[in-house]
Amino acid sequence: MRIGVPKEIKVHEYRVGLIPASVREAVAHGHEVLVEAGAAERMGVSDDDYRRAGAKIADTAAEVFANSELIVKVKEPQPKECAMLREGQTLFTYLHLAPDPKQAKALMKSGVTAIAYETVTSAHGGLPLLSPMSEVAGRMAIQAGAHCLEMEQGGRGMLLGGSAGVAPANVVVIGGGVAGVNAVRMGIGLEAAVTCIDINIERLYELDHRFGASINTIFSTRQSIEDYVLQGELVIGALGETHVDAARAIGA
Amino acid sequence: MRIGVPKEIKVHEYRVGLIPASVREAVAHGHEVLVEAGAAERMGVSDDDYRRAGAKIADTAAEVFANSELIVKVKEPQPKECAMLREGQTLFTYLHLAPDPKQAKALMKSGVTAIAYETVTSAHGGLPLLSPMSEVAGRMAIQAGAHCLEMEQGGRGMLLGGSAGVAPANVVVIGGGVAGVNAVRMGIGLEAAVTCIDINIERLYELDHRFGASINTIFSTRQSIEDYVLQGELVIGALGETHVDAARAIGA
Amino acid sequence: MRIGVPKEIKVHEYRVGLIPASVREAVAHGHEVLVEAGAAERMGVSDDDYRRAGAKIADTAAEVFANSELIVKVKEPQPKECAMLREGQTLFTYLHLAPDPKQAKALMKSGVTAIAYETVTSAHGGLPLLSPMSEVAGRMAIQAGAHCLEMEQGGRGMLLGGSAGVAPANVVVIGGGVAGVNAVRMGIGLEAAVTCIDINIERLYELDHRFGASINTIFSTRQSIEDYVLQGELVIGALGETHVDAARAIGA
Amino acid sequence: MRIGVPKEIKVHEYRVGLIPASVREAVAHGHEVLVEAGAAERMGVSDDDYRRAGAKIADTAAEVFANSELIVKVKEPQPKECAMLREGQTLFTYLHLAPDPKQAKALMKSGVTAIAYETVTSAHGGLPLLSPMSEVAGRMAIQAGAHCLEMEQGGRGMLLGGSAGVAPANVVVIGGGVAGVNAVRMGIGLEAAVTCIDINIERLYELDHRFGASINTIFSTRQSIEDYVLQGELVIGALGETHVDAARAIGA
Amino acid sequence: MRIGVPKEIKVHEYRVGLIPASVREAVAHGHEVLVEAGAAERMGVSDDDYRRAGAKIADTAAEVFANSELIVKVKEPQPKECAMLREGQTLFTYLHLAPDPKQAKALMKSGVTAIAYETVTSAHGGLPLLSPMSEVAGRMAIQAGAHCLEMEQGGRGMLLGGSAGVAPANVVVIGGGVAGVNAVRMGIGLEAAVTCIDINIERLYELDHRFGASINTIFSTRQSIEDYVLQGELVIGALGETHVDAARAIGA
Amino acid sequence: MRIGVPKEIKVHEYRVGLIPASVREAVAHGHEVLVEAGAAERMGVSDDDYRRAGAKIADTAAEVFANSELIVKVKEPQPKECAMLREGQTLFTYLHLAPDPKQAKALMKSGVTAIAYETVTSAHGGLPLLSPMSEVAGRMAIQAGAHCLEMEQGGRGMLLGGSAGVAPANVVVIGGGVAGVNAVRMGIGLEAAVTCIDINIERLYELDHRFGASINTIFSTRQSIEDYVLQGELVIGALGETHVDAARAIGA
Repeated sequence: MRIGVPKEIKVHEYRVGLIPASVREAVAHGHEVLVEAGAAERMGVSDDDYRRAGAKIADTAAEVFANSELIVKVKEPQPKECAMLREGQTLFTYLHLAPDPKQAKALMKSGVTAIAYETVTSAHGGLPLLSPMSEVAGRMAIQAGAHCLEMEQGGRGMLLGGSAGVAPANVVVIGGGVAGVNAVRMGIGLEAAVTCIDINIERLYELDHRFGASINTIFSTRQSIEDYVLQGELVIGALGETHVDAARAIGA
Repeated sequence: MRIGVPKEIKVHEYRVGLIPASVREAVAHGHEVLVEAGAAERMGVSDDDYRRAGAKIADTAAEVFANSELIVKVKEPQPKECAMLREGQTLFTYLHLAPDPKQAKALMKSGVTAIAYETVTSAHGGLPLLSPMSEVAGRMAIQAGAHCLEMEQGGRGMLLGGSAGVAPANVVVIGGGVAGVNAVRMGIGLEAAVTCIDINIERLYELDHRFGASINTIFSTRQSIEDYVLQGELVIGALGETHVDAARAIGA
Repeated sequence: MRIGVPKEIKVHEYRVGLIPASVREAVAHGHEVLVEAGAAERMGVSDDDYRRAGAKIADTAAEVFANSELIVKVKEPQPKECAMLREGQTLFTYLHLAPDPKQAKALMKSGVTAIAYETVTSAHGGLPLLSPMSEVAGRMAIQAGAHCLEMEQGGRGMLLGGSAGVAPANVVVIGGGVAGVNAVRMGIGLEAAVTCIDINIERLYELDHRFGASINTIFSTRQSIEDYVLQGELVIGALGETHVDAARAIGA
Repeated sequence: MRIGVPKEIKVHEYRVGLIPASVREAVAHGHEVLVEAGAAERMGVSDDDYRRAGAKIADTAAEVFANSELIVKVKEPQPKECAMLREGQTLFTYLHLAPDPKQAKALMKSGVTAIAYETVTSAHGGLPLLSPMSEVAGRMAIQAGAHCLEMEQGGRGMLLGGSAGVAPANVVVIGGGVAGVNAVRMGIGLEAAVTCIDINIERLYELDHRFGASINTIFSTRQSIEDYVLQGELVIGALGETHVDAARAIGA
Repeated sequence: MRIGVPKEIKVHEYRVGLIPASVREAVAHGHEVLVEAGAAERMGVSDDDYRRAGAKIADTAAEVFANSELIVKVKEPQPKECAMLREGQTLFTYLHLAPDPKQAKALMKSGVTAIAYETVTSAHGGLPLLSPMSEVAGRMAIQAGAHCLEMEQGGRGMLLGGSAGVAPANVVVIGGGVAGVNAVRMGIGLEAAVTCIDINIERLYELDHRFGASINTIFSTRQSIEDYVLQGELVIGALGETHVDAARAIGA
Repeated sequence: MRIGVPKEIKVHEYRVGLIPASVREAVAHGHEVLVEAGAAERMGVSDDDYRRAGAKIADTAAEVFANSELIVKVKEPQPKECAMLREGQTLFTYLHLAPDPKQAKALMKSGVTAIAYETVTSAHGGLPLLSPMSEVAGRMAIQAGAHCLEMEQGGRGMLLGGSAGVAPANVVVIGGGVAGVNAVRMGIGLEAAVTCIDINIERLYELDHRFGASINTIFSTRQSIEDYVLQGELVIGALGETHVDAARAIGA
């Protein structure tokens, strides 16, 4: 199969559909891979790195789209990209179509077969292409929250873990899914006082079993959310699968 | 040396100065050991156990006191026992003389050389005979506190560690010495939310380093004690070396 | 829906079907909640707490039963309560009918639709209303066992975790289900030497994986139970889902 | 004693010499405390909070300096402050005189008795007023380093702890003192691959004993520093007691 | 049912189909058990141990095979044993038929009903008779690898865990199944720097969640295997369910 | 200073006095280093590695001894080496003179100033050159013991950590010094049931505090040693500073 990897063009997207190691896998399985020039240079990966892995380099995105049966990307196709898709071609990327009817229509019009990463399901019912995003989002939420609590950033001037003789910050994670549990891990790792609120008692049981005395698990009710959010110095909403908001890093 | 081990006569004292394993050590070092009949029977240790370890059994305490150069006991000598002590004899036991001038006078009058366990100091400045009592006291404090929080005992009906979805009890340990740190360990072991308050910042640093996210260490001020004691479901005073009070296991 | 919450009348039952936070949830979903006066006062929750959560207060149980489509309780209905149930009404509570044919007949006669908490099954096959009881039972078993081993209670005078230089107690937990694993956690938390015996090798594998060097997992045979029970200072039977017996806290 | 607490005037210093809880302690010991108006308002602490703790409020720094026997501050006195100090008065604050001869001369000229926090030594040889600064510095170094590795900050776009299937960052901490060990703890807490390099083998032994498989301890030589710094994505110099530099958070 | 337990005759096989505790279970369920004389003597278990458990002892394997409806063994039947099997009889043992067509034909010819341990599947899809072998294999792999790295064995003279100031060995475990995860546990237990490579991202997530900062989980590609195998001092292939090879314990 | 590093000539000694990284340090401090050709080749370190670090290579040991003010070695000098030492020269190596009067006399005769590694004491009273040997010895003891328990080596066929459903081995470590504590760590790491016996109650307290439920600490008496040694599958004597014996890995 001819696989094409265009450079991502959405703002602030520095990643790429296939890294050289993945290209090498595809080539070893008998596929051809065509990568747009400079596709991963912002990650410190050169065209030569791709060539060594067995890819060919195309000068333009147009060339990639024109010559590939399968297009592998990261973010949803931008209008300019949708215009290059065609029937008989397959697109493999995150789509997140629900809030984006424009894109949905453009894809339907193109006739492409589009497979959304976020819907790929494993044999055990997991979402192996979505979960890693939730992992990263949950971990980043703590890092971003810690940063926002610094006084220089307008925060309260608190260290998440406090220090000897000084109380840690109360971190409240709402939602104990993949994003939530990763926020919990990092929050405990920085020695904060972490509470996780969820409506699924079986999930809370797993968290309690895993983190023991380091976590406070709370069943979700209007009352409990109100109580804990009011005493939290950092509140992280981890309700959707990948969407994480550090909603309230308290300022002075 | 002739060593004597009388049966303890203070109320609720079930222990004994030397257990058979200790007798065996003493005998192996060339000493003679004389144990009062039935000295350890309430611990499930028979006179024959002592005989097998190399001791001789005396019928009465008087016989033990009369024939021993060194008397090894657990608790401070009771008036009846003081009357049997004499010059040239050594007494080795807990004395706790400070609040007990009567005993002090009786000992002085007897002429005995009395060595208090609680004052024996190791090469590194530790108190190897007192510390184990503090260890036990600190551990028992959590056990006793957990018991008192049961509703059947008039408590608030709380499990120290809560359960999945239910918050744990706040356990506040005032004092981070040997007794305090053992209360902390057991409190964390039962998955309570443990705070330790101490005026020694270096000690708090050690506790923070050892227990990480599982402990909240707080520098002791009037304000912090007031704040934490008011929110504690179980408050343990661990200020003296062995004295531990579960001062406030909250009732309904 | 009109939801009724009578005061529990079974001896030693201090809990209540809905706490104020649950009432608030129900009201927010458009239901009416009628709570018997004083229903939770022994837990320190007043009628005004319920009113603030949106409930109405009824003077008598009869009023609650008469005006509710759904009755939410804790324990199985007592004969007096069964007499107030009627066709068209739903009862939601623990029933434990197996050993209680009298209650079964009374319920059938009343015509009520009774849903037993202990039979509610989650999407993953768990028992989300029964498991928390097992959690509590398993945790309490260690607390009760530790108490029974105190010499003042007629026990052997042993701390579960021993102390420096003194061996811990052998705690044997028969059954590695929810109750058993919670007994195991608390036993390890108090630093006892814990053995868990089960006939399910996959469950033992999970426990071994979770607790590592802190647990001894043993496949259940007549021989292994005999061997371990004989050397156990505290033996906990955790065979049924909620039933836990501290069968043998050894006395002197 | 009359104690004075002026507002800090050094740029970016938001802290204050005594918080209300400390004022309460001082007052309880019979001292008078005079606090400059607005001294802690940027920390969210009002003059009324100080009044409730027993302090009096002075309108100006000049009033505080003129009426106090002991001045308690955070940072070294600025020239304007030095000019208000006088013989017979004591100044208690961080001084860090070594690189600041101007200040040293101004203090000598004033005739004040100045006690530097950083030189206060405990009975065990520790530096109880300096160590907490090192704790904070070491913990902040990881937080700052993690932030700098974000691609948006010009970093390499790496999470310190990686994620499932993706390697963590190599964090190299040079120096295993108070600052270093706190950087190590936070780095391990965020699940990075942490190496600590020190020239003191006994200190490395302590770290190895405490962090086991989670840390790599390396004896410091030119060769080992060169080897590890070259492979580190985040290198933290923790050599002085409080000075910590995140010297090299690798960009793309 | 009449159950027969012959002595294993395959070279280096010291185990036995049923140990006395298992015999006791079978007898308690109403079965008769016939054990070949000396069947477990190399494990330190005598014929009298079997008699006490309720077994009868047969002088020869022939007698066992002739008089049993069910034969319980450890290893696949050797040709001599196949010749004693017959129609109507059941054989319960590890068979591993795939690479062994000779055995397959001999079994088919005998008419016996043979049930392979390695194919027995639990209600949850696990392999409860195969997994314990993988556990042992994974644990032994680390032990064997550590031994092979000793200089006396021709290895590099490295301790898996290094020591204070000296880096640990890099242990690379390829495959995160039961064997792999047990190798990981023991490798971390000895404080090595452990990397686990697997193609199943969900399995890597579980490992990362369980072992946190102590493990490096890597998604399997040609590139990642190449990279890690080249820097590994001990490489363990744990790809099959029970097959584990310590492929590369590096010599000098 | 001129520093000489001869090749070790004692049987089974593969190490060398200075590795290239140490040579580089010495040279950076202005010293000259002369290394015997092939000194470290059995460790995989070439003469060129030494040259790159700044050393000169000498063809013979005689040349090294003749031209160096300081000789740095690993093992005590053999008679041939003693003959090359001379007054005015310093020897730095392990000497262990106590059981070796011949060496002592040869050294005295040579007039060399010999400094034994094992006597170098740190500011805190530690033995920084001896302790690492004890660390290695303690860790190796577990590795060697695990190997000896394999049935192929004539052992009992036990895994130290057992497996799910199968009890671990009892490992008894006599002595809780540096060697003992490292044996304890590795024993717990392999998930054995570890008991440590010591006569120093303060040391036992530290071990109990560090290893909690994973260790059994026992005060040393004739009785306790007898009891535990009899039930231990692996008994490790760690009494001297570096001397560790795996005295009793039980065979069948």
